[in-house]
Amino acid sequence: MGRVEQKKQRDRMILDKAEEAIVERGLFSLSLLELARQAECSVNTLYGSFAKREDIAVGLFNRVMATFGVKACQEIALRQESIAERFMAMQMIWIRRQHKQSDLGGVQFLAAMPSVWKHASHSRIAITRKLLDSWYQSNLNFLQMARANGELVADDDHLHQCLNEVTCVERGFSLFSNNYSFRDEAISLPMERVFKVMSFSLEELSWQTPLTNDSFKRVMNICDEVETSLRNFDVDEHIWAVEMNAQELQ
Amino acid sequence: MGRVEQKKQRDRMILDKAEEAIVERGLFSLSLLELARQAECSVNTLYGSFAKREDIAVGLFNRVMATFGVKACQEIALRQESIAERFMAMQMIWIRRQHKQSDLGGVQFLAAMPSVWKHASHSRIAITRKLLDSWYQSNLNFLQMARANGELVADDDHLHQCLNEVTCVERGFSLFSNNYSFRDEAISLPMERVFKVMSFSLEELSWQTPLTNDSFKRVMNICDEVETSLRNFDVDEHIWAVEMNAQELQ
Repeated sequence: MGRVEQKKQRDRMILDKAEEAIVERGLFSLSLLELARQAECSVNTLYGSFAKREDIAVGLFNRVMATFGVKACQEIALRQESIAERFMAMQMIWIRRQHKQSDLGGVQFLAAMPSVWKHASHSRIAITRKLLDSWYQSNLNFLQMARANGELVADDDHLHQCLNEVTCVERGFSLFSNNYSFRDEAISLPMERVFKVMSFSLEELSWQTPLTNDSFKRVMNICDEVETSLRNFDVDEHIWAVEMNAQELQ
Repeated sequence: MGRVEQKKQRDRMILDKAEEAIVERGLFSLSLLELARQAECSVNTLYGSFAKREDIAVGLFNRVMATFGVKACQEIALRQESIAERFMAMQMIWIRRQHKQSDLGGVQFLAAMPSVWKHASHSRIAITRKLLDSWYQSNLNFLQMARANGELVADDDHLHQCLNEVTCVERGFSLFSNNYSFRDEAISLPMERVFKVMSFSLEELSWQTPLTNDSFKRVMNICDEVETSLRNFDVDEHIWAVEMNAQELQ
């Protein structure tokens, strides 16, 4: 095994162990010393990949975003359903994920904490930015493609508005349902209702092929199938490629 | 100054310094030793109030929830505008707050991280639960009062559904707009659009006095006036009262 492969395997193990440690012992008890021991490497070696605890936190966030943001969008885009349904599936796959299980580490919300971003390494944040941009752009491109195909009528501001609105609903559900006190409340909200609130924003775009009464069922079917295919996705390999690409651009 | 007053002042200073430290040096660099030094007390004394860093984090969350959740709801409930408008103001005051400024510590999102809750002290979490319950119940009671007054027609499930939906939109906007990469995008979404998406959920309840074209302006006016009055609110005193009350009930 070459040195690059070794580093990849080690970083993967460090992140795996870090997520376990956050769930088991808490976000604030994350110890780089302890992680190095578990990953069977020196602290210096660990510092080479993750210089600060913020880098670990951001690394874990990157995994979630690369999987359910970037990769899921790519898979959904390739499907045969209508554009509006595929766009909705890109949002609903997060809702479906939260319905199945709460995120015990809660790492997906760390990116909304400037106190974490500000103190993470630039190189790590560069990856996060690329992943977030890629996710947002995939969604936006999808609406722009629909417009280019004559599928909808809207100016750029309206496309952004629609995307920002559905993102608020999606992120809000994810946050609300991940709160100990409110998980049951959130889960009692039928997924079809979340879908309807998002559809309200979509309908502003005057679609040629609008969502129908069957759309919800079809969208959830997309989510299920894509989620199954995501199980074989090597997220760390994907992030590694993004990292290499970011370095080349510098 | 009595011992209770001394403890209150010390706890207040510890939380103030902790929030500064989180912003300045990062969430993971929070040091109880350093905080004790700044608050001019021994580490043992500090441990008496905040035994773990999770307790500090939860203490900071409690301040946000007590101010913009509990207290703001109480103030808004006392106003003269229509019930639907007051209910909307209870949601929009968070949106307005986020529009003005992002939350640099991001502590309001910590309650969606089970890894923080799980490791905080029971007594601290008991306060959080009481504040969250109080906030949710104030909102729900408001809709139930509207129903009792013949202002709307809906069963309990629909009231919960409406409240859960507007909460998703509110929390989602707060989360999205607190992300470095997306703050500008989120802020570009007109507050009136956020209002419209929430209104979509409200309209399901068949109001006698529904929202009108002027409602948005009036709701934002409520938010402004209540926010101004909140500046004189002593949140730590409020939380202290909740804490005493929680202890009596045990």
